[in-house]
Amino acid sequence: MTGEAQVVTAAVLVIGDEILSGRTQDGNSHYIAKYLADIGIDLREIRVVPDVEEEIVAAVNALRARYRYVFTTGGIGPTHDDITADAIARAFGVGIEEDPRAIAMLLERIRPDQLNEARRRMARIPLGAELIENTISKAPGFMIDNVIVMAGVPMIMQCMLDAIAPTLATGEHVLVEAIEADSVPEGRYAKQLAALAEAYPQVSMGSYPHFSSQGVRNQIVLRSREAAPLAAAKEAVLGMVAQLRSDSAPG
Amino acid sequence: MTGEAQVVTAAVLVIGDEILSGRTQDGNSHYIAKYLADIGIDLREIRVVPDVEEEIVAAVNALRARYRYVFTTGGIGPTHDDITADAIARAFGVGIEEDPRAIAMLLERIRPDQLNEARRRMARIPLGAELIENTISKAPGFMIDNVIVMAGVPMIMQCMLDAIAPTLATGEHVLVEAIEADSVPEGRYAKQLAALAEAYPQVSMGSYPHFSSQGVRNQIVLRSREAAPLAAAKEAVLGMVAQLRSDSAPG
Repeated sequence: MTGEAQVVTAAVLVIGDEILSGRTQDGNSHYIAKYLADIGIDLREIRVVPDVEEEIVAAVNALRARYRYVFTTGGIGPTHDDITADAIARAFGVGIEEDPRAIAMLLERIRPDQLNEARRRMARIPLGAELIENTISKAPGFMIDNVIVMAGVPMIMQCMLDAIAPTLATGEHVLVEAIEADSVPEGRYAKQLAALAEAYPQVSMGSYPHFSSQGVRNQIVLRSREAAPLAAAKEAVLGMVAQLRSDSAPG
Repeated sequence: MTGEAQVVTAAVLVIGDEILSGRTQDGNSHYIAKYLADIGIDLREIRVVPDVEEEIVAAVNALRARYRYVFTTGGIGPTHDDITADAIARAFGVGIEEDPRAIAMLLERIRPDQLNEARRRMARIPLGAELIENTISKAPGFMIDNVIVMAGVPMIMQCMLDAIAPTLATGEHVLVEAIEADSVPEGRYAKQLAALAEAYPQVSMGSYPHFSSQGVRNQIVLRSREAAPLAAAKEAVLGMVAQLRSDSAPG
């Protein structure tokens, strides 16, 4: 489908005070970003919000209206600060109840006499949601309409993503080419690169400097859903970089 | 000012396709989160948006209306995909022009005959903005009204943050106590912790499980702007954890 690539979009919503306070570094959104790129889903936005119901509701409703899928992480454990399931139910205007399917999953790991009130909280699921299996600690995630609700603990989030991914719609993959411009300064190739970006409108071109103690290294990244223009743009960019290198070669 | 703590809020807006595509892991927002906590600014939201002008404009306008400060990272280099300055000007409805102060800064590092069109782009600053010094590569950031526009390269972003931070309003610091609950399962203390959270409304309590190959370790984090209730809550939580540990001790 040249020029008519099917695009499936997504957003990630990270829920958790501990990320905003700087206590914990969120690695889940990066993991999900790579994962979605690999399966052909375009991640378009990431948001991090605190453990505050109104904030979660507002973000879920803004994102689910705009993107094909919304992936949330965090806030589905047994403690009082785990309010994601309730917030999702409120965002959809549906009830939330203890789900017998979720209780059955919890009982695979927890003895019946230890299934106390707090642990039963993890089986409270918005009405109409499908459960997402958690092979590690058993407390399930869930999917309601286009919103996929996962744990914040990375190992568990990852296993939930593996469980739900095969059921999702995916689009054509974005093809990527990365070209090392090494020490050729961005400021020397910026104008030519802009001209190439105009010449190859099907290819998105980005330039990324990396500063380190060894100096600056630049990378030019080309992205497209179409192989032929991508290959042509790559040749053109490689030619530009080679020319600039030889221009600056001594003697 | 007991019970009337001065709160200064902020949001971080990360601008960059490379984060959303999963090619680069954003470490800037975590760095800024810790930095702001240290100086007494409450980070309330993080967003990551692509290099698309309308997306940047919409996010800047949503966030600047809502929080005292907005910190942006990324998109202020010399290449065609660096569109943050233009997007900020559009968000504020002001013009954007080459700024002689910024040109002077660039000339500290770039020879006049090498200050080409692309590099001059880095001196285009929205009208009314104050510049933020960049001691590393000289191309400045800027602050316009409550929006602080910084580079995406971590070393440069960090030096800009150091430059602007002393000029910002700050609130009372949030005091933090972290209590190791070790292997006491969350599901065993969740109900008591919820009761303590109600008993100490000035203290926000979070429970954070960490799963590893060694098993689960839980940490309870208490946060407050008031020292006395925080100390009392800490004692109460420590007592709860000790009691639960002895309840589960063998024999």
